[in-house]
Amino acid sequence: MGLVLKDCDWIVTQDPQRRILANASVRITDGRIEQVGRVNAASKDEVIDCRRKVLIPGLINTHTHLSMTLFRGYADDLELRDWLENKIWPLESRLTGDMCYQGALLGSLEMTRTGTTCFVDMYFHMEDVARAVDEAGLRAILSPGMIDKPDKTGTEHERQSTLKFLEYIHELHNPLLSFAVGPHAPYTCGPETLLWARDLAEKEDTLVNIHIAETRGEQAQFEKDGKGRVAEYLDRIGFLTNRVLAAHAVWLTKSEVKLFGQKGVRVSHSPVSNMKLASGGTAPVPEMWDAGVPVGLGTDGPASNNGLDMFDTMKMTALVHKNARWDPTIMNAQRVLDMATLDGARCIGREKELGSVEIGKRADLVLVDLRDPNLIPIHRKETVVSDLVYSANGQNVDTTIVDGRPLMVSRRFQKLDQDKIGEEVRSSIGQLIPQ
Amino acid sequence: MGLVLKDCDWIVTQDPQRRILANASVRITDGRIEQVGRVNAASKDEVIDCRRKVLIPGLINTHTHLSMTLFRGYADDLELRDWLENKIWPLESRLTGDMCYQGALLGSLEMTRTGTTCFVDMYFHMEDVARAVDEAGLRAILSPGMIDKPDKTGTEHERQSTLKFLEYIHELHNPLLSFAVGPHAPYTCGPETLLWARDLAEKEDTLVNIHIAETRGEQAQFEKDGKGRVAEYLDRIGFLTNRVLAAHAVWLTKSEVKLFGQKGVRVSHSPVSNMKLASGGTAPVPEMWDAGVPVGLGTDGPASNNGLDMFDTMKMTALVHKNARWDPTIMNAQRVLDMATLDGARCIGREKELGSVEIGKRADLVLVDLRDPNLIPIHRKETVVSDLVYSANGQNVDTTIVDGRPLMVSRRFQKLDQDKIGEEVRSSIGQLIPQ
Repeated sequence: MGLVLKDCDWIVTQDPQRRILANASVRITDGRIEQVGRVNAASKDEVIDCRRKVLIPGLINTHTHLSMTLFRGYADDLELRDWLENKIWPLESRLTGDMCYQGALLGSLEMTRTGTTCFVDMYFHMEDVARAVDEAGLRAILSPGMIDKPDKTGTEHERQSTLKFLEYIHELHNPLLSFAVGPHAPYTCGPETLLWARDLAEKEDTLVNIHIAETRGEQAQFEKDGKGRVAEYLDRIGFLTNRVLAAHAVWLTKSEVKLFGQKGVRVSHSPVSNMKLASGGTAPVPEMWDAGVPVGLGTDGPASNNGLDMFDTMKMTALVHKNARWDPTIMNAQRVLDMATLDGARCIGREKELGSVEIGKRADLVLVDLRDPNLIPIHRKETVVSDLVYSANGQNVDTTIVDGRPLMVSRRFQKLDQDKIGEEVRSSIGQLIPQ
Repeated sequence: MGLVLKDCDWIVTQDPQRRILANASVRITDGRIEQVGRVNAASKDEVIDCRRKVLIPGLINTHTHLSMTLFRGYADDLELRDWLENKIWPLESRLTGDMCYQGALLGSLEMTRTGTTCFVDMYFHMEDVARAVDEAGLRAILSPGMIDKPDKTGTEHERQSTLKFLEYIHELHNPLLSFAVGPHAPYTCGPETLLWARDLAEKEDTLVNIHIAETRGEQAQFEKDGKGRVAEYLDRIGFLTNRVLAAHAVWLTKSEVKLFGQKGVRVSHSPVSNMKLASGGTAPVPEMWDAGVPVGLGTDGPASNNGLDMFDTMKMTALVHKNARWDPTIMNAQRVLDMATLDGARCIGREKELGSVEIGKRADLVLVDLRDPNLIPIHRKETVVSDLVYSANGQNVDTTIVDGRPLMVSRRFQKLDQDKIGEEVRSSIGQLIPQ
């Protein structure tokens, strides 16, 4: 029995020719896309009517901290250091696994609602996060964050936690969930931890998920400590490989960008968070493209965004670069949609399976409702992508499908209970932050 | 018979103390707010259950071109001049009144959907726009755009059109609709037209709605023409008064900002459009505040945004200024919400009647749904405003009320027919742009 997405007004395939198909359908069997265009439905197929809808590949969020939905709106408009040290860290020290589970369920609900089908996460209590995402049915790459304390106490404990989580993921037997190593950043992890992470990623054939060059303060500290430019330092110690997924990468020189290109480093760009925390500057994304660096998009954690809506991030990405370069052509809608789909898949090494609506790929698919006032009119085939990037937002998503399984249909959640999650999150917050 | 908004989780009053009320209600009679807080409902009152909702003043969009919803997504990622000359102007020359009516209905639908209750518009065929807005039930200030051709042909005709529209508005007898004079810009209108506009505004006791200093190209042209700085030129000819609502005002020097302050000029800030068209730079809004200039927010026309969602504009406003100044504290959420409500009301000289939830003010009110995943959790009273600016978007709006009349309740339009408008817009587009 298959699932047929029938008579989509448009299908934005994101195939190599970036074809947009009019009045086309998709048939899904065993979690994969089996037919695209004209479809032969079997009598037992489940059918979703896709008239007045556009079908796109599920969006890939390459950097977030899902459980931080708990801190959404808790403390805004602050300097990064003030925000972290006086607001976020004190809360994080009191987080329990169950709270992280509730936060991850809420984050999964929001991602499903807004068309994200796959994401890369780093946080604490990752077994609880994995449990929530397993329940939600999303695809994810999960990495427990590792931080070296100045006196190195806890380093061995964090390594053991990472290995324990790796085992936990293996035992879950959920093909949608995978593991990545998560050293937090070069300024919070010493070279031994970074190289341990590199070696584990090599052994497990996976990614190293790490924050690099998010703020100018970080780079200033590196120079003060006599370690020079951060990317050059990472290369010197042998850390930079094509397994590295570098989140942020704002404060890089052109030669560091080239170094990333030579080493095959991938980048997750999170402009909303960078702007909100006033990291300053704008990540050199066009230079990364020139250097052959795959660049995906991320929302970052919901406490510094304050959401998980990749449509919002797509629009902001296009706008911030146009504004920074005084050039409306520097980043067009197609390029931005590529970042949120195909390039996101390249960032996680899954471009053969994800990121486009093509026969044989996994069926991670999203329908956007074209009856909503903000998506009228659609002028012609060539403008559909522009409408998705500049006019749409995540709330226009009507249906979200991961690996062939509908998680939301006609804006109704199929697996998660929205009201229950809301109540339980409020109760978790009540325990975490007594009023 | 009154209308009671009962048991709102929160009311963001925007009163002088910026009070947030918990578990509070509002009673409306004769289009005005009669009670706030604890309410004595009469037995015949209509009641809207506002649990899990937050009540805010209706948002005020101080600059748009409503009928340009027709061109949404038609041509993006282009240089401003290329966009205008090769894409937009050729279409505009073929627009009919009926098309503008359909576009304005669609725009009204989107504004109602996303919580805008009052807006300032400039375009062509304004009688048709007025007809649509009258039907939609929104509050608006409407100005027919005036442009001097180089040979001055048509100038007299445009003046007559403006006067005819003024008469049309008087005859509509709709207290929600009012007239403003609309000379397009200093670079498209000669001094005679500008002063004619000033005098008419004085006579009619209304605003002059005009674009000033949107692009650096405009300023460069002024200097090339020997007219100097644009704001100084406008002052020299006697145009700058407290009736002027200056849209954009990006490329001003500090002394021009001070001049605006001295003359009482008001500013409409449209950051999304400025970023999308890569006008370059960022409007000097903090300097405007220092100079006492009221600054409201605008979306600009939907062809350069590509929407009318003031929540999107609020978030972008906060972020672009934080990013430009490398300072997350330069523009906080409360300040941004002020711009979208009270300062918008000041921009149109209606601060005594609009912009806050206070007894005696007109009942332009919006309910936002707190059950949506992206608005969970709300931490405490003090964070509600932050949640509205950073976490919410226009699709979270549940109910929109103008002058006491519900235009949308529980996301259902009360006056407009969404599907019919969609069909008719598509048909208008078919006539305007044969495929």
